[in-house]
Amino acid sequence: MIVIGELINGTRKKVKAAIHDRDAEYIAELARKQDEAGADFIDVNPGTVGEQEIEDTVWLVQTAQEATSKPLCLDTPNAAAIEAGLQVYTGSAVPMINSISLETERLETMLPLVKAAQANVIALSLSDAGMPTKPGDREQAAVPLIDKLVDEAGLAPERVFVDPIITPVSTQQEVVGLIMGAIEAILTHNPRVHVTSGLSNISFGLPNRKLLNRVALTLFMSAGMDSAVLDPLDAKMMAQVRATEALLCRDEFCMGYLTAFREGALEV
Amino acid sequence: MIVIGELINGTRKKVKAAIHDRDAEYIAELARKQDEAGADFIDVNPGTVGEQEIEDTVWLVQTAQEATSKPLCLDTPNAAAIEAGLQVYTGSAVPMINSISLETERLETMLPLVKAAQANVIALSLSDAGMPTKPGDREQAAVPLIDKLVDEAGLAPERVFVDPIITPVSTQQEVVGLIMGAIEAILTHNPRVHVTSGLSNISFGLPNRKLLNRVALTLFMSAGMDSAVLDPLDAKMMAQVRATEALLCRDEFCMGYLTAFREGALEV
Repeated sequence: MIVIGELINGTRKKVKAAIHDRDAEYIAELARKQDEAGADFIDVNPGTVGEQEIEDTVWLVQTAQEATSKPLCLDTPNAAAIEAGLQVYTGSAVPMINSISLETERLETMLPLVKAAQANVIALSLSDAGMPTKPGDREQAAVPLIDKLVDEAGLAPERVFVDPIITPVSTQQEVVGLIMGAIEAILTHNPRVHVTSGLSNISFGLPNRKLLNRVALTLFMSAGMDSAVLDPLDAKMMAQVRATEALLCRDEFCMGYLTAFREGALEV
Repeated sequence: MIVIGELINGTRKKVKAAIHDRDAEYIAELARKQDEAGADFIDVNPGTVGEQEIEDTVWLVQTAQEATSKPLCLDTPNAAAIEAGLQVYTGSAVPMINSISLETERLETMLPLVKAAQANVIALSLSDAGMPTKPGDREQAAVPLIDKLVDEAGLAPERVFVDPIITPVSTQQEVVGLIMGAIEAILTHNPRVHVTSGLSNISFGLPNRKLLNRVALTLFMSAGMDSAVLDPLDAKMMAQVRATEALLCRDEFCMGYLTAFREGALEV
Protein backbone atom coordinates (compact mmCIF):
# COMPACT_ATOMS: atom_id res chain seq x y z
CA MET A 1 0.00 0.00 0.00
CA ILE A 2 1.40 3.35 -1.04
CA VAL A 3 0.40 5.82 1.66
CA ILE A 4 0.29 9.55 0.89
CA GLY A 5 0.35 11.41 4.21
CA GLU A 6 -2.24 14.17 4.15
CA LEU A 7 -1.52 16.18 7.29
CA ILE A 8 0.46 19.14 5.86
CA ASN A 9 -2.62 20.81 4.46
CA GLY A 10 -3.22 24.56 4.71
CA THR A 11 -6.98 24.07 5.04
CA ARG A 12 -6.30 22.65 8.54
CA LYS A 13 -6.29 25.49 11.09
CA LYS A 14 -2.95 24.84 12.80
CA VAL A 15 -1.17 24.16 9.52
CA LYS A 16 -2.63 27.34 8.06
CA ALA A 17 -1.20 29.31 11.00
CA ALA A 18 2.17 27.54 10.74
CA ILE A 19 2.41 28.41 7.04
CA HIS A 20 1.42 32.01 7.69
CA ASP A 21 3.93 32.35 10.55
CA ARG A 22 6.64 30.36 8.72
CA ASP A 23 6.78 27.98 11.71
CA ALA A 24 9.24 25.56 10.12
CA GLU A 25 9.52 23.30 13.16
CA TYR A 26 5.77 22.57 13.19
CA ILE A 27 5.79 21.59 9.51
CA ALA A 28 9.02 19.59 9.90
CA GLU A 29 7.55 17.61 12.77
CA LEU A 30 4.42 16.75 10.77
CA ALA A 31 6.68 15.54 7.95
CA ARG A 32 8.86 13.46 10.33
CA LYS A 33 5.94 11.90 12.18
CA GLN A 34 4.16 10.86 8.99
CA ASP A 35 7.43 9.46 7.61
CA GLU A 36 7.94 7.38 10.77
CA ALA A 37 4.32 6.18 10.75
CA GLY A 38 4.78 4.68 7.29
CA ALA A 39 3.89 7.38 4.77
CA ASP A 40 5.47 6.77 1.35
CA PHE A 41 4.81 10.32 0.13
CA ILE A 42 4.33 13.51 2.19
CA ASP A 43 1.62 15.73 0.72
CA VAL A 44 2.12 19.51 0.97
CA ASN A 45 -0.89 21.71 0.28
CA PRO A 46 -0.54 25.46 0.92
CA GLY A 47 -4.27 26.15 1.03
CA THR A 48 -3.70 29.67 -0.28
CA VAL A 49 -4.16 31.31 -3.71
CA GLY A 50 -2.31 33.29 -6.37
CA GLU A 51 1.16 34.69 -5.71
CA GLN A 52 0.93 33.65 -2.05
CA GLU A 53 0.27 30.06 -3.14
CA ILE A 54 3.52 30.02 -5.12
CA GLU A 55 5.59 31.39 -2.23
CA ASP A 56 3.92 29.07 0.27
CA THR A 57 4.46 25.99 -1.91
CA VAL A 58 8.16 26.82 -2.29
CA TRP A 59 8.51 27.29 1.48
CA LEU A 60 6.60 24.05 2.26
CA VAL A 61 8.77 22.05 -0.14
CA GLN A 62 11.98 23.51 1.28
CA THR A 63 10.82 22.97 4.87
CA ALA A 64 9.41 19.46 4.50
CA GLN A 65 12.34 18.08 2.52
CA GLU A 66 14.71 19.11 5.32
CA ALA A 67 12.77 16.81 7.65
CA THR A 68 12.21 13.70 5.53
CA SER A 69 13.82 11.78 2.70
CA LYS A 70 10.41 10.56 1.55
CA PRO A 71 9.27 12.12 -1.72
CA LEU A 72 6.86 15.04 -1.52
CA CYS A 73 3.46 15.29 -3.17
CA LEU A 74 2.88 18.86 -4.36
CA ASP A 75 -0.82 19.49 -3.89
CA THR A 76 -2.30 22.56 -5.55
CA PRO A 77 -4.34 23.27 -8.69
CA ASN A 78 -1.97 26.17 -9.44
CA ALA A 79 0.47 25.07 -12.17
CA ALA A 80 2.85 27.96 -11.43
CA ALA A 81 3.04 26.85 -7.79
CA ILE A 82 3.76 23.25 -8.83
CA GLU A 83 6.46 24.46 -11.21
CA ALA A 84 8.10 26.66 -8.57
CA GLY A 85 7.90 23.88 -6.00
CA LEU A 86 9.52 21.37 -8.35
CA GLN A 87 12.35 23.83 -9.06
CA VAL A 88 13.40 23.90 -5.40
CA TYR A 89 12.76 20.17 -4.81
CA THR A 90 16.08 18.48 -4.00
CA GLY A 91 14.88 14.99 -2.96
CA SER A 92 16.42 11.98 -4.69
CA ALA A 93 13.04 10.19 -4.89
CA VAL A 94 10.69 11.16 -7.70
CA PRO A 95 8.06 13.61 -6.39
CA MET A 96 4.32 13.56 -7.08
CA ILE A 97 2.07 16.17 -8.63
CA ASN A 98 -1.42 16.41 -7.14
CA SER A 99 -3.27 16.65 -9.49
CA ILE A 100 -4.25 16.54 -13.16
CA SER A 101 -7.66 15.74 -14.67
CA LEU A 102 -9.37 15.51 -18.06
CA GLU A 103 -10.94 18.94 -17.49
CA THR A 104 -9.72 21.04 -20.43
CA GLU A 105 -8.11 23.88 -18.50
CA ARG A 106 -6.37 21.73 -15.92
CA LEU A 107 -5.20 19.29 -18.56
CA GLU A 108 -3.72 22.05 -20.74
CA THR A 109 -1.82 23.70 -17.91
CA MET A 110 -0.67 20.53 -16.12
CA LEU A 111 0.17 18.09 -18.95
CA PRO A 112 3.28 19.99 -20.17
CA LEU A 113 4.49 20.25 -16.55
CA VAL A 114 3.99 16.53 -15.93
CA LYS A 115 5.74 15.73 -19.21
CA ALA A 116 8.72 17.94 -18.37
CA ALA A 117 9.02 16.65 -14.79
CA GLN A 118 8.31 12.96 -15.51
CA ALA A 119 6.95 12.97 -11.99
CA ASN A 120 4.34 10.76 -10.36
CA VAL A 121 0.90 12.28 -10.80
CA ILE A 122 -2.54 11.90 -9.29
CA ALA A 123 -4.98 11.65 -12.21
CA LEU A 124 -8.50 12.60 -11.19
CA SER A 125 -11.38 10.81 -12.92
CA LEU A 126 -12.96 14.14 -13.80
CA SER A 127 -13.84 15.58 -17.19
CA ASP A 128 -15.63 18.75 -18.32
CA ALA A 129 -18.85 16.78 -17.72
CA GLY A 130 -18.37 17.39 -13.98
CA MET A 131 -18.59 15.14 -10.97
CA PRO A 132 -19.21 11.44 -11.72
CA THR A 133 -22.72 10.24 -10.91
CA LYS A 134 -23.66 7.50 -13.38
CA PRO A 135 -22.22 4.03 -13.91
CA GLY A 136 -19.26 4.40 -16.25
CA ASP A 137 -18.64 8.12 -15.61
CA ARG A 138 -15.43 7.47 -13.66
CA GLU A 139 -13.82 5.09 -16.12
CA GLN A 140 -14.89 7.27 -19.08
CA ALA A 141 -12.82 10.12 -17.64
CA ALA A 142 -9.96 8.00 -16.33
CA VAL A 143 -9.19 5.88 -19.40
CA PRO A 144 -8.47 8.72 -21.88
CA LEU A 145 -6.55 10.59 -19.16
CA ILE A 146 -4.30 7.56 -18.54
CA ASP A 147 -3.72 7.28 -22.28
CA LYS A 148 -2.75 10.96 -22.55
CA LEU A 149 -0.34 10.66 -19.63
CA VAL A 150 1.29 7.52 -21.00
CA ASP A 151 1.18 8.21 -24.74
CA GLU A 152 1.44 12.03 -24.92
CA ALA A 153 3.43 12.85 -21.77
CA GLY A 154 5.50 9.67 -21.98
CA LEU A 155 4.97 8.64 -18.34
CA ALA A 156 5.59 5.09 -17.24
CA PRO A 157 2.14 3.77 -16.18
CA GLU A 158 3.59 3.16 -12.70
CA ARG A 159 3.87 6.97 -12.32
CA VAL A 160 0.10 7.38 -12.78
CA PHE A 161 -2.05 7.28 -9.63
CA VAL A 162 -5.67 7.28 -10.78
CA ASP A 163 -8.17 8.79 -8.33
CA PRO A 164 -11.67 7.38 -9.02
CA ILE A 165 -13.27 10.32 -7.12
CA ILE A 166 -15.04 9.23 -3.98
CA THR A 167 -18.43 10.86 -3.37
CA PRO A 168 -20.73 10.45 -0.34
CA VAL A 169 -22.75 7.31 0.22
CA SER A 170 -25.29 9.56 1.97
CA THR A 171 -26.21 11.21 -1.32
CA GLN A 172 -25.88 8.15 -3.61
CA GLN A 173 -26.03 4.89 -1.74
CA GLU A 174 -24.86 2.69 -4.61
CA VAL A 175 -21.65 4.70 -5.02
CA VAL A 176 -19.32 2.11 -3.45
CA GLY A 177 -20.30 -0.43 -6.11
CA LEU A 178 -19.78 2.20 -8.84
CA ILE A 179 -16.32 3.06 -7.50
CA MET A 180 -15.33 -0.60 -7.14
CA GLY A 181 -16.47 -1.24 -10.72
CA ALA A 182 -14.52 1.80 -11.92
CA ILE A 183 -11.34 0.62 -10.17
CA GLU A 184 -11.66 -2.79 -11.83
CA ALA A 185 -12.30 -1.22 -15.25
CA ILE A 186 -9.32 1.14 -14.88
CA LEU A 187 -7.00 -1.73 -13.93
CA THR A 188 -8.35 -3.83 -16.79
CA HIS A 189 -7.48 -0.99 -19.18
CA ASN A 190 -3.99 -0.65 -17.76
CA PRO A 191 -2.94 -3.05 -14.99
CA ARG A 192 0.28 -1.12 -14.33
CA VAL A 193 -1.26 2.13 -13.02
CA HIS A 194 -1.88 2.71 -9.32
CA VAL A 195 -5.26 3.61 -7.86
CA THR A 196 -5.41 6.10 -4.99
CA SER A 197 -7.91 8.42 -3.35
CA GLY A 198 -8.78 10.34 -0.25
CA LEU A 199 -11.39 8.33 1.64
CA SER A 200 -13.24 10.74 3.87
CA ASN A 201 -15.79 11.97 1.31
CA ILE A 202 -17.45 8.54 1.42
CA SER A 203 -18.78 9.19 4.94
CA PHE A 204 -19.86 12.82 4.50
CA GLY A 205 -23.17 13.44 6.28
CA LEU A 206 -23.04 10.26 8.41
CA PRO A 207 -21.93 9.70 12.01
CA ASN A 208 -18.81 7.81 13.10
CA ARG A 209 -17.10 8.75 9.86
CA LYS A 210 -13.74 7.15 10.64
CA LEU A 211 -15.36 3.71 10.91
CA LEU A 212 -16.97 4.10 7.48
CA ASN A 213 -13.71 5.44 5.99
CA ARG A 214 -11.79 2.40 7.27
CA VAL A 215 -14.35 -0.11 6.01
CA ALA A 216 -14.52 1.66 2.64
CA LEU A 217 -10.75 1.40 2.33
CA THR A 218 -10.96 -2.38 2.70
CA LEU A 219 -13.67 -2.58 0.04
CA PHE A 220 -11.74 -0.38 -2.41
CA MET A 221 -8.54 -2.36 -1.76
CA SER A 222 -10.39 -5.57 -2.60
CA ALA A 223 -11.27 -4.00 -5.97
CA GLY A 224 -7.61 -3.15 -6.60
CA MET A 225 -6.88 0.20 -4.92
CA ASP A 226 -3.23 0.09 -3.85
CA SER A 227 -2.68 3.61 -2.50
CA ALA A 228 -4.55 6.15 -0.39
CA VAL A 229 -4.28 9.74 0.75
CA LEU A 230 -4.77 9.47 4.50
CA ASP A 231 -3.55 10.35 7.98
CA PRO A 232 -0.81 7.82 8.77
CA LEU A 233 -0.99 8.84 12.45
CA ASP A 234 -4.53 7.37 12.59
CA ALA A 235 -3.56 4.05 14.20
CA LYS A 236 -6.91 2.38 13.52
CA MET A 237 -6.74 3.29 9.84
CA MET A 238 -3.17 2.02 9.52
CA ALA A 239 -4.12 -1.22 11.34
CA GLN A 240 -6.97 -1.64 8.84
CA VAL A 241 -4.50 -1.14 5.96
CA ARG A 242 -2.10 -3.76 7.37
CA ALA A 243 -4.88 -6.28 8.09
CA THR A 244 -6.39 -5.86 4.64
CA GLU A 245 -2.98 -6.29 2.98
CA ALA A 246 -2.38 -9.51 4.96
CA LEU A 247 -5.81 -10.89 4.04
CA LEU A 248 -5.62 -9.91 0.37
CA CYS A 249 -2.26 -11.64 -0.07
CA ARG A 250 -0.38 -8.38 -0.61
CA ASP A 251 1.93 -8.86 2.36
CA GLU A 252 4.14 -11.92 1.91
CA PHE A 253 4.00 -14.25 4.91
CA CYS A 254 2.09 -11.42 6.68
CA MET A 255 5.49 -9.92 7.55
CA GLY A 256 4.26 -6.32 7.37
CA TYR A 257 1.34 -7.20 9.62
CA LEU A 258 3.56 -9.04 12.11
CA THR A 259 6.12 -6.21 12.12
CA ALA A 260 3.40 -3.64 12.77
CA PHE A 261 2.12 -5.84 15.61
CA ARG A 262 5.57 -6.14 17.19
CA GLU A 263 5.99 -2.37 16.98
CA GLY A 264 2.69 -1.91 18.81
CA ALA A 265 1.10 -0.34 15.75
CA LEU A 266 -1.87 -2.74 15.70
CA GLU A 267 -2.86 -2.13 19.32
CA VAL A 268 -6.15 -0.43 18.63
CA MET B 1 -27.09 -9.47 7.67
CA ILE B 2 -28.40 -12.59 9.36
CA VAL B 3 -26.47 -12.92 12.61
CA ILE B 4 -26.20 -16.32 14.32
CA GLY B 5 -25.16 -15.71 17.94
CA GLU B 6 -22.40 -18.16 18.88
CA LEU B 7 -22.02 -17.69 22.64
CA ILE B 8 -24.02 -20.69 23.95
CA ASN B 9 -21.28 -23.16 23.13
CA GLY B 10 -20.27 -25.96 25.46
CA THR B 11 -16.65 -25.76 24.36
CA ARG B 12 -16.49 -22.43 26.25
CA LYS B 13 -15.50 -23.05 29.87
CA LYS B 14 -18.28 -21.14 31.66
CA VAL B 15 -20.95 -22.48 29.33
CA LYS B 16 -19.66 -26.01 29.81
CA ALA B 17 -20.02 -25.58 33.59
CA ALA B 18 -23.48 -24.04 33.24
CA ILE B 19 -24.65 -26.98 31.11
CA HIS B 20 -23.16 -29.47 33.54
CA ASP B 21 -24.74 -27.73 36.54
CA ARG B 22 -28.04 -27.04 34.74
CA ASP B 23 -27.57 -23.31 35.47
CA ALA B 24 -30.60 -22.17 33.50
CA GLU B 25 -30.26 -18.51 34.42
CA TYR B 26 -26.73 -18.30 32.94
CA ILE B 27 -27.86 -19.80 29.63
CA ALA B 28 -31.05 -17.71 29.58
CA GLU B 29 -29.04 -14.52 30.05
CA LEU B 30 -26.71 -15.41 27.19
CA ALA B 31 -29.76 -15.98 24.99
CA ARG B 32 -31.39 -12.69 26.05
CA LYS B 33 -28.23 -10.61 25.65
CA GLN B 34 -27.53 -11.95 22.15
CA ASP B 35 -31.16 -11.38 21.18
CA GLU B 36 -30.98 -7.76 22.36
CA ALA B 37 -27.64 -7.21 20.60
CA GLY B 38 -29.19 -8.12 17.25
CA ALA B 39 -28.76 -11.89 16.83
CA ASP B 40 -31.29 -13.36 14.38
CA PHE B 41 -30.64 -16.95 15.48
CA ILE B 42 -29.30 -18.21 18.83
CA ASP B 43 -26.88 -21.11 18.39
CA VAL B 44 -26.92 -23.85 21.06
CA ASN B 45 -24.00 -26.28 21.09
CA PRO B 46 -23.80 -28.77 23.98
CA GLY B 47 -20.12 -29.60 23.46
CA THR B 48 -20.68 -33.11 24.84
CA VAL B 49 -21.00 -36.55 23.20
CA GLY B 50 -23.32 -39.56 23.00
CA GLU B 51 -26.33 -39.87 25.30
CA GLN B 52 -25.19 -36.83 27.29
CA GLU B 53 -25.24 -34.78 24.08
CA ILE B 54 -28.89 -35.65 23.50
CA GLU B 55 -29.93 -34.73 27.05
CA ASP B 56 -27.89 -31.54 26.98
CA THR B 57 -29.30 -30.46 23.62
CA VAL B 58 -32.86 -30.96 24.88
CA TRP B 59 -32.11 -28.96 28.03
CA LEU B 60 -30.40 -26.16 26.07
CA VAL B 61 -33.33 -25.86 23.66
CA GLN B 62 -35.85 -25.80 26.52
CA THR B 63 -33.81 -23.28 28.48
CA ALA B 64 -32.92 -20.92 25.64
CA GLN B 65 -36.40 -20.77 24.15
CA GLU B 66 -37.79 -19.59 27.49
CA ALA B 67 -35.51 -16.55 27.24
CA THR B 68 -35.88 -15.51 23.61
CA SER B 69 -38.40 -15.60 20.80
CA LYS B 70 -35.58 -15.70 18.23
CA PRO B 71 -35.25 -19.06 16.48
CA LEU B 72 -32.59 -21.44 17.77
CA CYS B 73 -29.76 -23.00 15.77
CA LEU B 74 -29.18 -26.58 16.95
CA ASP B 75 -25.45 -27.12 16.66
CA THR B 76 -24.18 -30.69 16.95
CA PRO B 77 -23.02 -33.39 14.51
CA ASN B 78 -25.23 -35.89 16.42
CA ALA B 79 -28.42 -36.51 14.40
CA ALA B 80 -30.20 -38.03 17.40
CA ALA B 81 -29.48 -34.89 19.43
CA ILE B 82 -30.82 -32.68 16.64
CA GLU B 83 -33.94 -34.83 16.39
CA ALA B 84 -34.56 -34.74 20.14
CA GLY B 85 -33.93 -30.99 20.25
CA LEU B 86 -36.38 -30.33 17.42
CA GLN B 87 -39.04 -32.40 19.21
CA VAL B 88 -39.02 -30.09 22.24
CA TYR B 89 -38.64 -26.90 20.17
CA THR B 90 -41.74 -24.75 20.64
CA GLY B 91 -40.66 -21.52 18.91
CA SER B 92 -42.90 -20.09 16.21
CA ALA B 93 -39.93 -19.15 14.02
CA VAL B 94 -38.35 -21.89 11.88
CA PRO B 95 -35.22 -23.21 13.62
CA MET B 96 -31.83 -23.96 12.06
CA ILE B 97 -29.84 -27.19 11.91
CA ASN B 98 -26.07 -26.78 12.21
CA SER B 99 -24.93 -28.63 10.12
CA ILE B 100 -25.01 -30.90 7.08
CA SER B 101 -22.25 -31.57 4.53
CA LEU B 102 -21.60 -33.64 1.44
CA GLU B 103 -19.59 -36.14 3.54
CA THR B 104 -21.36 -39.48 3.02
CA GLU B 105 -22.07 -40.32 6.65
CA ARG B 106 -23.23 -36.87 7.70
CA LEU B 107 -25.31 -36.51 4.55
CA GLU B 108 -27.08 -39.86 5.07
CA THR B 109 -27.94 -39.19 8.71
CA MET B 110 -28.86 -35.51 8.37
CA LEU B 111 -30.69 -35.27 5.01
CA PRO B 112 -33.81 -37.20 6.16
CA LEU B 113 -33.94 -35.04 9.30
CA VAL B 114 -33.66 -31.82 7.31
CA LYS B 115 -36.33 -33.05 4.91
CA ALA B 116 -38.74 -33.97 7.71
CA ALA B 117 -38.16 -30.72 9.63
CA GLN B 118 -38.04 -28.36 6.60
CA ALA B 119 -35.77 -26.30 8.83
CA ASN B 120 -33.05 -23.83 7.92
CA VAL B 121 -29.74 -25.64 7.60
CA ILE B 122 -26.07 -24.74 7.52
CA ALA B 123 -24.56 -26.58 4.54
CA LEU B 124 -20.80 -27.04 4.90
CA SER B 125 -18.73 -27.01 1.72
CA LEU B 126 -17.11 -30.30 2.72
CA SER B 127 -17.07 -33.62 0.87
CA ASP B 128 -15.35 -36.92 1.52
CA ALA B 129 -12.30 -35.36 -0.15
CA GLY B 130 -11.66 -33.47 3.11
CA MET B 131 -10.85 -29.87 3.86
CA PRO B 132 -10.84 -27.52 0.83
CA THR B 133 -7.38 -26.42 -0.26
CA LYS B 134 -7.41 -25.91 -4.03
CA PRO B 135 -9.28 -23.40 -6.19
CA GLY B 136 -12.73 -24.87 -6.86
CA ASP B 137 -12.78 -27.29 -3.91
CA ARG B 138 -15.37 -25.27 -1.99
CA GLU B 139 -17.83 -24.77 -4.84
CA GLN B 140 -17.42 -28.40 -5.96
CA ALA B 141 -18.70 -29.53 -2.56
CA ALA B 142 -21.30 -26.79 -2.13
CA VAL B 143 -23.08 -26.97 -5.48
CA PRO B 144 -24.18 -30.66 -5.33
CA LEU B 145 -25.07 -30.22 -1.66
CA ILE B 146 -27.34 -27.26 -2.46
CA ASP B 147 -28.97 -29.31 -5.22
CA LYS B 148 -29.61 -32.23 -2.86
CA LEU B 149 -31.13 -29.94 -0.23
CA VAL B 150 -33.37 -28.20 -2.74
CA ASP B 151 -34.24 -31.08 -5.09
CA GLU B 152 -34.18 -34.12 -2.77
CA ALA B 153 -35.11 -32.62 0.60
CA GLY B 154 -37.47 -30.07 -0.94
CA LEU B 155 -36.06 -27.08 0.92
CA ALA B 156 -36.69 -23.57 -0.30
CA PRO B 157 -33.24 -22.23 -1.30
CA GLU B 158 -33.73 -19.44 1.28
CA ARG B 159 -33.51 -22.13 3.99
CA VAL B 160 -30.00 -23.11 2.88
CA PHE B 161 -27.08 -21.30 4.53
CA VAL B 162 -23.93 -22.36 2.68
CA ASP B 163 -20.72 -22.27 4.73
CA PRO B 164 -17.70 -21.94 2.40
CA ILE B 165 -15.36 -23.21 5.17
CA ILE B 166 -12.93 -20.60 6.33
CA THR B 167 -9.35 -21.80 6.84
CA PRO B 168 -6.35 -19.86 8.20
CA VAL B 169 -4.58 -17.25 6.10
CA SER B 170 -1.44 -18.17 8.09
CA THR B 171 -1.31 -21.59 6.43
CA GLN B 172 -2.56 -20.59 2.95
CA GLN B 173 -2.20 -16.92 2.27
CA GLU B 174 -4.33 -16.85 -0.89
CA VAL B 175 -7.33 -18.36 0.94
CA VAL B 176 -9.37 -15.14 1.12
CA GLY B 177 -9.42 -14.92 -2.66
CA LEU B 178 -10.41 -18.59 -2.92
CA ILE B 179 -13.27 -18.09 -0.45
CA MET B 180 -14.46 -14.92 -2.19
CA GLY B 181 -14.43 -16.76 -5.51
CA ALA B 182 -16.34 -19.68 -3.98
CA ILE B 183 -19.00 -17.35 -2.56
CA GLU B 184 -19.48 -15.75 -5.97
CA ALA B 185 -19.66 -19.17 -7.69
CA ILE B 186 -22.19 -20.48 -5.14
CA LEU B 187 -24.43 -17.42 -5.58
CA THR B 188 -24.13 -17.69 -9.36
CA HIS B 189 -25.34 -21.31 -9.11
CA ASN B 190 -28.26 -20.36 -6.89
CA PRO B 191 -28.72 -16.66 -6.05
CA ARG B 192 -31.43 -17.44 -3.49
CA VAL B 193 -29.28 -19.31 -0.93
CA HIS B 194 -27.61 -17.52 1.98
CA VAL B 195 -23.88 -17.65 2.68
CA THR B 196 -22.71 -17.83 6.28
CA SER B 197 -19.63 -18.87 8.25
CA GLY B 198 -17.75 -18.52 11.47
CA LEU B 199 -14.93 -16.05 10.90
CA SER B 200 -12.31 -16.73 13.53
CA ASN B 201 -10.46 -19.53 11.69
CA ILE B 202 -9.19 -16.96 9.21
CA SER B 203 -6.89 -15.41 11.83
CA PHE B 204 -5.63 -18.61 13.48
CA GLY B 205 -1.91 -18.31 14.26
CA LEU B 206 -1.77 -14.52 13.87
CA PRO B 207 -1.88 -11.74 16.48
CA ASN B 208 -4.73 -9.29 16.97
CA ARG B 209 -7.19 -11.83 15.63
CA LYS B 210 -10.34 -9.78 16.13
CA LEU B 211 -9.05 -7.11 13.77
CA LEU B 212 -8.43 -9.69 11.04
CA ASN B 213 -11.82 -11.33 11.67
CA ARG B 214 -13.59 -7.98 11.25
CA VAL B 215 -11.75 -7.05 8.07
CA ALA B 216 -12.33 -10.55 6.64
CA LEU B 217 -16.05 -10.15 7.29
CA THR B 218 -16.12 -7.01 5.16
CA LEU B 219 -14.27 -8.77 2.34
CA PHE B 220 -16.58 -11.81 2.42
CA MET B 221 -19.65 -9.54 2.55
CA SER B 222 -18.43 -7.74 -0.56
CA ALA B 223 -18.37 -11.14 -2.31
CA GLY B 224 -21.97 -11.85 -1.23
CA MET B 225 -21.87 -13.34 2.27
CA ASP B 226 -25.08 -12.23 4.00
CA SER B 227 -24.87 -14.08 7.32
CA ALA B 228 -22.26 -14.94 9.94
CA VAL B 229 -21.85 -17.00 13.08
CA LEU B 230 -20.37 -14.51 15.53
CA ASP B 231 -20.48 -12.92 18.98
CA PRO B 232 -23.14 -10.20 18.74
CA LEU B 233 -21.86 -8.73 22.02
CA ASP B 234 -18.58 -7.85 20.24
CA ALA B 235 -19.40 -4.18 19.64
CA LYS B 236 -16.55 -3.63 17.19
CA MET B 237 -17.63 -6.59 15.08
CA MET B 238 -21.26 -5.45 15.04
CA ALA B 239 -20.16 -1.90 14.13
CA GLN B 240 -18.17 -3.39 11.24
CA VAL B 241 -21.28 -5.31 10.12
CA ARG B 242 -23.45 -2.17 10.18
CA ALA B 243 -20.83 -0.03 8.40
CA THR B 244 -20.30 -2.66 5.69
CA GLU B 245 -24.05 -3.00 5.15
CA ALA B 246 -24.40 0.77 4.78
CA LEU B 247 -21.51 0.97 2.30
CA LEU B 248 -22.61 -2.06 0.26
CA CYS B 249 -26.11 -0.64 -0.21
CA ARG B 250 -27.73 -3.35 1.93
CA ASP B 251 -29.17 -0.90 4.45
CA GLU B 252 -31.72 1.40 2.84
CA PHE B 253 -30.98 5.06 3.55
CA CYS B 254 -28.39 3.77 6.08
CA MET B 255 -31.25 3.47 8.59
CA GLY B 256 -29.76 0.44 10.36
CA TYR B 257 -26.44 2.23 10.67
CA LEU B 258 -28.06 5.42 11.96
CA THR B 259 -30.24 3.48 14.43
CA ALA B 260 -27.18 1.62 15.75
CA PHE B 261 -25.40 4.95 16.12
CA ARG B 262 -28.30 6.50 18.06
CA GLU B 263 -28.38 3.48 20.34
CA GLY B 264 -24.67 3.94 21.06
CA ALA B 265 -23.85 0.67 19.34
CA LEU B 266 -21.25 2.23 17.02
CA GLU B 267 -19.26 3.89 19.79
CA VAL B 268 -16.14 1.80 19.44
